[in-house]
Amino acid sequence: MPDHEFTTIALTVDDGVATIRLDRPGRMNAFNPIMKDELIAAFDITDADDAVRAVIVTGNGKAFCAGADLSAGGKTFDYDQRAGVDAHRDGGGQLSMRLFRSLKPIIAAVNGAAVGVGVTMQLPMDIRMASDNAKFGFVFSRRGIVPEAASSWFLTRAVGLSTALEWCYSGRIFTAAEALERGLVRSVHAPDELYPAAVALAREFADQTAPVSVAMTRQMLWRMHTAQHPMEAHRIDSQAIRARGQSGDAREGVSSFLEKRPAEFPDRVSADMPDFFEWQGEPPFQSSE
Amino acid sequence: MPDHEFTTIALTVDDGVATIRLDRPGRMNAFNPIMKDELIAAFDITDADDAVRAVIVTGNGKAFCAGADLSAGGKTFDYDQRAGVDAHRDGGGQLSMRLFRSLKPIIAAVNGAAVGVGVTMQLPMDIRMASDNAKFGFVFSRRGIVPEAASSWFLTRAVGLSTALEWCYSGRIFTAAEALERGLVRSVHAPDELYPAAVALAREFADQTAPVSVAMTRQMLWRMHTAQHPMEAHRIDSQAIRARGQSGDAREGVSSFLEKRPAEFPDRVSADMPDFFEWQGEPPFQSSE
Amino acid sequence: MPDHEFTTIALTVDDGVATIRLDRPGRMNAFNPIMKDELIAAFDITDADDAVRAVIVTGNGKAFCAGADLSAGGKTFDYDQRAGVDAHRDGGGQLSMRLFRSLKPIIAAVNGAAVGVGVTMQLPMDIRMASDNAKFGFVFSRRGIVPEAASSWFLTRAVGLSTALEWCYSGRIFTAAEALERGLVRSVHAPDELYPAAVALAREFADQTAPVSVAMTRQMLWRMHTAQHPMEAHRIDSQAIRARGQSGDAREGVSSFLEKRPAEFPDRVSADMPDFFEWQGEPPFQSSE
Repeated sequence: MPDHEFTTIALTVDDGVATIRLDRPGRMNAFNPIMKDELIAAFDITDADDAVRAVIVTGNGKAFCAGADLSAGGKTFDYDQRAGVDAHRDGGGQLSMRLFRSLKPIIAAVNGAAVGVGVTMQLPMDIRMASDNAKFGFVFSRRGIVPEAASSWFLTRAVGLSTALEWCYSGRIFTAAEALERGLVRSVHAPDELYPAAVALAREFADQTAPVSVAMTRQMLWRMHTAQHPMEAHRIDSQAIRARGQSGDAREGVSSFLEKRPAEFPDRVSADMPDFFEWQGEPPFQSSE
Repeated sequence: MPDHEFTTIALTVDDGVATIRLDRPGRMNAFNPIMKDELIAAFDITDADDAVRAVIVTGNGKAFCAGADLSAGGKTFDYDQRAGVDAHRDGGGQLSMRLFRSLKPIIAAVNGAAVGVGVTMQLPMDIRMASDNAKFGFVFSRRGIVPEAASSWFLTRAVGLSTALEWCYSGRIFTAAEALERGLVRSVHAPDELYPAAVALAREFADQTAPVSVAMTRQMLWRMHTAQHPMEAHRIDSQAIRARGQSGDAREGVSSFLEKRPAEFPDRVSADMPDFFEWQGEPPFQSSE
Repeated sequence: MPDHEFTTIALTVDDGVATIRLDRPGRMNAFNPIMKDELIAAFDITDADDAVRAVIVTGNGKAFCAGADLSAGGKTFDYDQRAGVDAHRDGGGQLSMRLFRSLKPIIAAVNGAAVGVGVTMQLPMDIRMASDNAKFGFVFSRRGIVPEAASSWFLTRAVGLSTALEWCYSGRIFTAAEALERGLVRSVHAPDELYPAAVALAREFADQTAPVSVAMTRQMLWRMHTAQHPMEAHRIDSQAIRARGQSGDAREGVSSFLEKRPAEFPDRVSADMPDFFEWQGEPPFQSSE
């Protein structure tokens, strides 16, 4: 799917960094099933394209994403209005599951209001940066629904249970400063400096690093940190070090370090991920599915 | 069980906010099996009463709770002195399991000394606020016993492993300032301002929010944040959004927002929790039990 | 194995506090399979010796540990160069599994550069303190390999996913100040004051506390904090309180407190750990192993 076929987002790639812009500025980038499908498709593209070393997600216009498109009014959250997978699977959660499986680092550059699914969609992204005029709100309790997009898992891991509960109970809107203080975002920037700062961080991830190492690191950390015993991580990283240790990347990584020169890593994510682990595997939605 | 039958605590309800006061001020609110049973009974009352939207727990007098009542001296922790469930189940842990299942948000307002079970009982509460003269201590190692009330699970989640280990190894008493710095408490207040601040936060949880949404949120976040894979959360919240999305609450939540008026949510916790999940279920203490 | 038989580390015990010094100062204490075996042996000694109440790990010379010994050049991480268990199990992970099972508190006193396995080996230690000239780096992505020593589990628990991913993606070297800000280390000290500060904290853990209580606390917190439901912790600590509550330690702990005198705890880790739990057990590396 080439970039220009998207209707609710825009995808560009520049010097190793992909930028996905939520692109319904007249609707404050409100989320709808089309945007969900297009975002999922965009991450299929960034995962498959070896030219992409990191992904930035931001919003066009004043908002990041104002939440679910409420143009259906009181029936907005009534699944019986929906067809196909959307009739039984939460749309935000479908997106979260796709983000979880990403092989490339993801940075959210939160340029304005981020409410409801507009903030829960950021939680499976690796790092959140915000402009100082960004606003956040887990407003579900005020709409009569509940936190979605698997945020009961993601939000508690990002900011701890007490803060997650406080924000979800009250549903109140809060500032970038509070988001920073409570650990939801990594850093806060002047509006003009937000996107350049996100690019600078993406460059840190892309320059001087081995792409296959970064992809494996993403899946190892997201998946292993919930293991009940560290032995599970020891098993995986023993295999990972064994597989990577014999690679051209490892030889080049050590040699270039000892020779004090930039590394040129030969391996590519599209071809060279070791096969001892199903890196993008996931449990079925339902055992009967 | 009406309020006045309690002997070690006092329960009042005012404008949606229940307050449970530990009420043995002459003994610094020391914890004993009667207080444990009465606290459990009090949370049965707050869960069943739709007039209660949030619960505050605080202490009468100078202390919050000075810990286990040591009037039995060296035999205090000898279970063979006990009968019934207390002979094989830690009392603090029985209380923690009950707090975990609460359908209403719980705020600890720590008005003074909170030592031993006096602090571990706060950990399954959602949010802790302290007066600036509060003191805390996980003193178990100095009494020859171990952390109880399932605090090996709750404390590590609240403040991380390093801080939890430091406090439990040393058993030292520490200040509200340190509790704030390390993340045990959300905020510190002048003694006179503590309870009003707790009420103000409880009001944030009660006003403008749907009671069923808040109850489901509590159980979803506490239970799902320990899942090994976020797919578990996606399964639950897909069902939760489906059930809630068809409710009168969701219609009212969206309609009132679009019409810029206060919401009047029709559903009640006592009658309208969706039935796809056993919200207050728990695994047995023993498989043979 | 007496102290003087070690060749890559030095172990001393002084007044209840063991100090393990990484001791290849001419190689910046670079990690090799001999150091791995000797560290594991050292923790067997500290666990067996009732005179040891806490363990400090630090480096001799300018560095803490500069990472894997790269003298084998590009073949450094090629397991086919190795024999025995090292041919299929990551060496850093073998050490991490041993540290996880320690019965004594472990404090890392990070006196200088700590890179690669030089920092991941610190993660299963309970508390990290650093000198202000310490430097850290999770450099694996720059060497073409991946985070090891089960750090996908340990690092994410210490500093959260976002920071762990940022450090591991970029592989950059960072300062003690950043390590403190992000929660990797507890405190930063002038170089001359680091070791005395570590000893002072170790003394807090050793003085006035029951050794068996401290050992049980370490295993309960490290193991129970990953349980899916707090009931698992309630089961273990009910048994732990029952066992400890009948001990001479519990009688002495309460009596000495009531009599306002220092406690003299009779029980010893080598003989008096209760038998309802396999305190140092671990799952096999492979089910077939």
